[in-house]
Amino acid sequence: MSNEKRLFELIGQIGDLDTAAMQAAKERQDYLAKPPGSLGRLEDISIKIAGITGKAVGNDVTKQCIAIFSADNGVVEEGVASAPQSVTLSQTINFTRRYTGVSSMAKYWGIDLLVTDVGVAMEIPEQLYTDKMLTEEGEIPVKIVNRRIANGTRNLAKGAAMTRAEAVQAMLIGFDAAEAAKKSGAQLFGVGEMGIGNTTTSSALLSALTGLSGEQVVGRGGGLNDEGLAKKIKIVDDAVNSWCMADPIEKLCKVGGYDICAMVGAFLGAAVHRLPVVIDGFISVVAACYAKELNPKVVDYMFASHKSYEIGYQAAMDRLHLQPMFDLGMRLGEGSGCPIAFKMIETAIASMNLMKTLEEASVDGDYLEDIRRDNLF
Amino acid sequence: MSNEKRLFELIGQIGDLDTAAMQAAKERQDYLAKPPGSLGRLEDISIKIAGITGKAVGNDVTKQCIAIFSADNGVVEEGVASAPQSVTLSQTINFTRRYTGVSSMAKYWGIDLLVTDVGVAMEIPEQLYTDKMLTEEGEIPVKIVNRRIANGTRNLAKGAAMTRAEAVQAMLIGFDAAEAAKKSGAQLFGVGEMGIGNTTTSSALLSALTGLSGEQVVGRGGGLNDEGLAKKIKIVDDAVNSWCMADPIEKLCKVGGYDICAMVGAFLGAAVHRLPVVIDGFISVVAACYAKELNPKVVDYMFASHKSYEIGYQAAMDRLHLQPMFDLGMRLGEGSGCPIAFKMIETAIASMNLMKTLEEASVDGDYLEDIRRDNLF
Repeated sequence: MSNEKRLFELIGQIGDLDTAAMQAAKERQDYLAKPPGSLGRLEDISIKIAGITGKAVGNDVTKQCIAIFSADNGVVEEGVASAPQSVTLSQTINFTRRYTGVSSMAKYWGIDLLVTDVGVAMEIPEQLYTDKMLTEEGEIPVKIVNRRIANGTRNLAKGAAMTRAEAVQAMLIGFDAAEAAKKSGAQLFGVGEMGIGNTTTSSALLSALTGLSGEQVVGRGGGLNDEGLAKKIKIVDDAVNSWCMADPIEKLCKVGGYDICAMVGAFLGAAVHRLPVVIDGFISVVAACYAKELNPKVVDYMFASHKSYEIGYQAAMDRLHLQPMFDLGMRLGEGSGCPIAFKMIETAIASMNLMKTLEEASVDGDYLEDIRRDNLF
Repeated sequence: MSNEKRLFELIGQIGDLDTAAMQAAKERQDYLAKPPGSLGRLEDISIKIAGITGKAVGNDVTKQCIAIFSADNGVVEEGVASAPQSVTLSQTINFTRRYTGVSSMAKYWGIDLLVTDVGVAMEIPEQLYTDKMLTEEGEIPVKIVNRRIANGTRNLAKGAAMTRAEAVQAMLIGFDAAEAAKKSGAQLFGVGEMGIGNTTTSSALLSALTGLSGEQVVGRGGGLNDEGLAKKIKIVDDAVNSWCMADPIEKLCKVGGYDICAMVGAFLGAAVHRLPVVIDGFISVVAACYAKELNPKVVDYMFASHKSYEIGYQAAMDRLHLQPMFDLGMRLGEGSGCPIAFKMIETAIASMNLMKTLEEASVDGDYLEDIRRDNLF
């Protein structure tokens, strides 16, 4: 079977949410000892999780994994990025050392990081690579998974960033990552990236999808100056206007990146495996929009973490009809919005699991026995 | 010494933030391996915590406590609340059973709850009471601390809700709670409440402080209908207009509640003890505003958790010049916004403690040795 045929077979495997479990969850929320609806979107989260797992109460979301896809983008030779390509290399290595933003949070909270090289431009030392997405013990490896398609994409200002076959290959790598997370026992999944130049590719992809102009979707990324910003806008407009892009995969291969293609696959794979999946910031949400283009059901499995600082974020979020959970002015990428979102989802599930209904919490019975410290902790 | 003199002596003891530690924290944030500012308000949080503790790096905020003050409000006889007073009693008991919204979250995350009866109307069984805010082991007790001033306040629609001496007494109870939290080892503190009718008292207090009309500050609370809402607005306007209230304490005793007075004291006490303190929702933020009236420095120790659904929230937040960290449409009270805020602050501190600077994270050295699973977890 061709890779593309296999890809579309996988994409078709996303199931429906369990509406009976959602109904049961909604009913329990309405009877818990609080004014109905007073826990706001924490209630909605618990209901959506119920739809994914098929269980109204007793869900466990404590085992968590963030997949980070690293790749370089040929377009950086146009001067659209404020940092050199060596940063893609060093940050990819530093994910495994737990030195970066997302990995410091992951280390603190005990979250697994699945770091995959889908096309970093510079060389990664052989000792840091592993071939497999799971160790023999069935764990997420600490090393970098070697799935390098090429030493970065080609310059989208001069031609297609990649071939269609490469886009499909990258998406399948994303599917593999979601599958590995599921097999490792993960109950919550997040999708992040590292790739200098990838706010340019994601802006171009968003423009190609929505018809919005470069000016409406291009921001300063890691910290571009005015001149760089103007150049970035022109490159996005020119690239998007120079192609007739018939379908989402065509758009991904003409103006996208290996990292974003893998993220699209990871979102779709999460949904296939009924794994609740958290969107990080701008690049992550653009990938989520492309996943939706390929199968709208994928959104049923998605949770938006933080409101990104990037200008195009809201347009992308509007296409998903989701709402971010928090706004801390973050714009780091890497999946760094996922850990806090995981803690919010855990809190929602904790209140669903541990709160009592008005009847169960009656103070007419033998409630005095419940109140002992060793009962509570 | 009179209680009021003692209160003002305590209020005067709030120290300044450590600006040298804040400067050092800011500098480290600027050199960490990320674009400067890209962790947004997580960076600001780590800098503010540094100012409170005097340490730029290595802070620990894992031991946490939420103080909940329970009291009833005489104004409920006007029909301004959608739930009966028995709910104040049952929820106060259910905090100790860990059955309510905030207490389910507290149980899950191992957060202490310091539940204090400052004036519940109905009788609490003697077996559930303790006299002390700390056990002999120096822990926060599981039982309800008995500091009951009276069986609820008087009806503010007919006269002053309490005497000035009672307001001072309630504030001192709040100070005691903050002191107990500090002595128990708490590194993060939150302030919540339980009291049917206390969105009426907090709306009246906000109106008395800001000059905003009842219509601008009164919401539906736990779930009031249109008729109840109109009555609640009129009661707030009439009560606020019927008094000449010279100072904050005068306002608190004429139209406030024991719970809110205790919360004011708890915020001030947290600042005296250099304990970072999290504001919950509407009632909590009104109390925070009154704490600021008594000593503006208290705001240096405050963090706003979630954007409350109540109409007056923003006006109160504007007076503090703070910004909430998240918006999940919550309107439960009890301190239920604090646990998620604690997890966000922990994440901010984790990234400050564990991220490396560009120099420390160099991949020119012997970084290969760092990358072993047993090194990371």
